[in-house]
Amino acid sequence: MYRMGRGSPDPDSIVITSGSQEGLYALSLALLDPGDIVIVERPTYLAMLQILKSLNVKIVDVELQEDGMDIAELESTVKKLKESGEKIKFIYTVPTCQNPTGITMSLEKRRGLIDIAERYDIYIVEDDPYSYYLYEEVENVTPLYKLCPDRVIYCSTFSKILVPGFRIGWLVTPRELTPHVVKMKQIVSLQTTTITQYVLADILKRGIIERRLPQLSEYYKKKRDAMLEALETYMPDHVTWTRPVGGMFIWVRTRSDIDTTSLLKTAIEKYGVAYVPGEAFYASRPHRNTMRLNFTYPSVREIFEGIERLGKLLKNV
Amino acid sequence: MYRMGRGSPDPDSIVITSGSQEGLYALSLALLDPGDIVIVERPTYLAMLQILKSLNVKIVDVELQEDGMDIAELESTVKKLKESGEKIKFIYTVPTCQNPTGITMSLEKRRGLIDIAERYDIYIVEDDPYSYYLYEEVENVTPLYKLCPDRVIYCSTFSKILVPGFRIGWLVTPRELTPHVVKMKQIVSLQTTTITQYVLADILKRGIIERRLPQLSEYYKKKRDAMLEALETYMPDHVTWTRPVGGMFIWVRTRSDIDTTSLLKTAIEKYGVAYVPGEAFYASRPHRNTMRLNFTYPSVREIFEGIERLGKLLKNV
Repeated sequence: MYRMGRGSPDPDSIVITSGSQEGLYALSLALLDPGDIVIVERPTYLAMLQILKSLNVKIVDVELQEDGMDIAELESTVKKLKESGEKIKFIYTVPTCQNPTGITMSLEKRRGLIDIAERYDIYIVEDDPYSYYLYEEVENVTPLYKLCPDRVIYCSTFSKILVPGFRIGWLVTPRELTPHVVKMKQIVSLQTTTITQYVLADILKRGIIERRLPQLSEYYKKKRDAMLEALETYMPDHVTWTRPVGGMFIWVRTRSDIDTTSLLKTAIEKYGVAYVPGEAFYASRPHRNTMRLNFTYPSVREIFEGIERLGKLLKNV
Repeated sequence: MYRMGRGSPDPDSIVITSGSQEGLYALSLALLDPGDIVIVERPTYLAMLQILKSLNVKIVDVELQEDGMDIAELESTVKKLKESGEKIKFIYTVPTCQNPTGITMSLEKRRGLIDIAERYDIYIVEDDPYSYYLYEEVENVTPLYKLCPDRVIYCSTFSKILVPGFRIGWLVTPRELTPHVVKMKQIVSLQTTTITQYVLADILKRGIIERRLPQLSEYYKKKRDAMLEALETYMPDHVTWTRPVGGMFIWVRTRSDIDTTSLLKTAIEKYGVAYVPGEAFYASRPHRNTMRLNFTYPSVREIFEGIERLGKLLKNV
C-alpha cells in the first residue's frame, strides 16, 4: 500500500518545496508562458486552478469519468488544439484518489494518457498526495512517473502522511527540467525551512512514517466506510456519490437544480453541517449541484450525524 | 537600537511569509503587471532583481550615494517616466545598512523619497532586514513605513535576528493591499510552516530576541571594526570601501580596469579568499570593479587573514 522508497528516483531530480503548493507553483512558473494551454481534469484541484489563473494561461478541461480522465475526449481535444497552433505545455492530473472526486485512474487510462503525451510531445504533471492512503487492494495505481519518467513531473507532500504544518513537499522532475524548477523555487522563497527538514530526515530514517501509515490507513478506512454507509442510509434518491478506494474525499452530486454554493449558508446555519461547494473545482462551466465531502477529519460519530443532517437538508430543498 | 514592538502596526496589516524572499515575491506578484516600472537603487539586493526579472517588469535604477539614493536623480527619473506614460508601481529600497553596500539613507533623503512617492502616487517597498543591527548611535533610521504608513510596504525577516532556517518573514502593508498580498501568498505556498511559527511565538513571548540582539550587535560590531581596520591596513591605494553603521556588508570598489567576476577564480584558488562580485547587484550597466564583503560570518582572525590575502591579490592584479 505504501510505496515511498521503492524504485527510488535520481536524488538530483528531486526538488524540495514548501508544501506541494509551492512545488506546483514553481513548476508552473518554470514551464508556462502567458497564453499557453494547460489541460486539467473536470473537476480538478482548486488550488492548481488558482495557480494557473494567476499565470494567465488558458485552461482546458477534459471530463473525468468513473475510471479517470476521458482519454478519447483528451485525444480529440489535444488534436484540435495542436491543429490550431496552440501550445499545450502540460496535462495536470491527480490520478489516484483525486481531489475533489476521490476517483482513481485505471491502469489502461494511465497508459492511454502517457501514449497521448508521448505522441503529441506534452509533459504530464502528476499530483499525488493521496496514493499513500489506499483502503483496499488496488492493482492499477502505478504512478505515472514510474511508467514514463522522462515525461512526467511527480509532485507530492508530507502534509498528508506526516503533518501539514511542516510544509514540506517534493517534486521529481525529468532531468532537463530540474535546474529551471530549482531556479524558480529560489526566486519564490530561496529555500525550504531547514529545521523541519532535519526533523523530517530523522523521522524518515527511523521509519516512523512507514510504521504509522498502515495504522492511519486503517483509521481512515473506517471513516470512509462510515461515510459511505451514512450516505446510503440518509441521502434522498436524487443524490449520487463516488466510492473512492482511498484518499480523503467523496464527491456528491445532487439534483440538477440545486446550487450548493448558495445552499451553504443554510447548511451551516440551519442544519449545522458544512461541505465544499463543487463550483470552485471547475475551470469553467461548473456543475453547481456538486459538493466535496471530507471523511478523514470528522469522527465516525460526526460523520453519521453530519450526513444525516445533510440528507435532511437535501430532502427539504 | 532594537525597535520591534515600538509603535506596533495593525496586526491585520501583517502578512507572515516564508522568509522575506517570499514576502517580496508575493508583494511583487500582487502589485506588478508585465511592462510596469520598478525603481531600484544602483546597486541593489540581487534576489530582488531576480524576482523583478522573472516578472518581466522594467527595472530602472537610481544612483546610490553615501547617504542613500540620489533624490534629485530619482525625481527627474520619475518625472521623465511619468511624462512618457510609464506605470511606475513602486520604488524598492533597503534604506538601512543596505545589501550590498552597507549604506544607510539619511533622514533628509527618507523624507525626500516619501515626498516624491506622495507627489507622483507611487508605493515604496522598504526592505529592512538589517536595521536591528546598528553598531553606533544613529538618529536617522526611522523606518519609512513609520514616516508614511499609507504608502510604504515594510518587509523584514527573522532570518537575521533569530535563525535563517526558520524561513519566517513578515510584511506590513497599507490596508488596501493586504488582501491582494495574502491571496498571492496563498497561491504561492498556501501557508508558512506552522511549527516554526509556534516556536517563534514562544521565543518572542519570552523576550529572547530582545535579550540576544544587543549581545549579537556587540559581537558583530567587533567584526565590522576588525574588517575596517584590516582594509585600512592591507588594501592598496586604488581601493575604496564603505563604512557601514550596522548590518553585515562592506562594499569595496577597486581600480576601474579590474573585473571582480573574472578575478574570483584566482582569488579562491590562488589566494584562498572569496567575495561576492558586484556585477549581480546591478540592474544594468554593472560596475565590474566592485565586490561585497560580509563581516558577520568569519571570525575576527579570519577577517584579518582574508583581507590581507585580498589586499595581496588586488596589489598583484
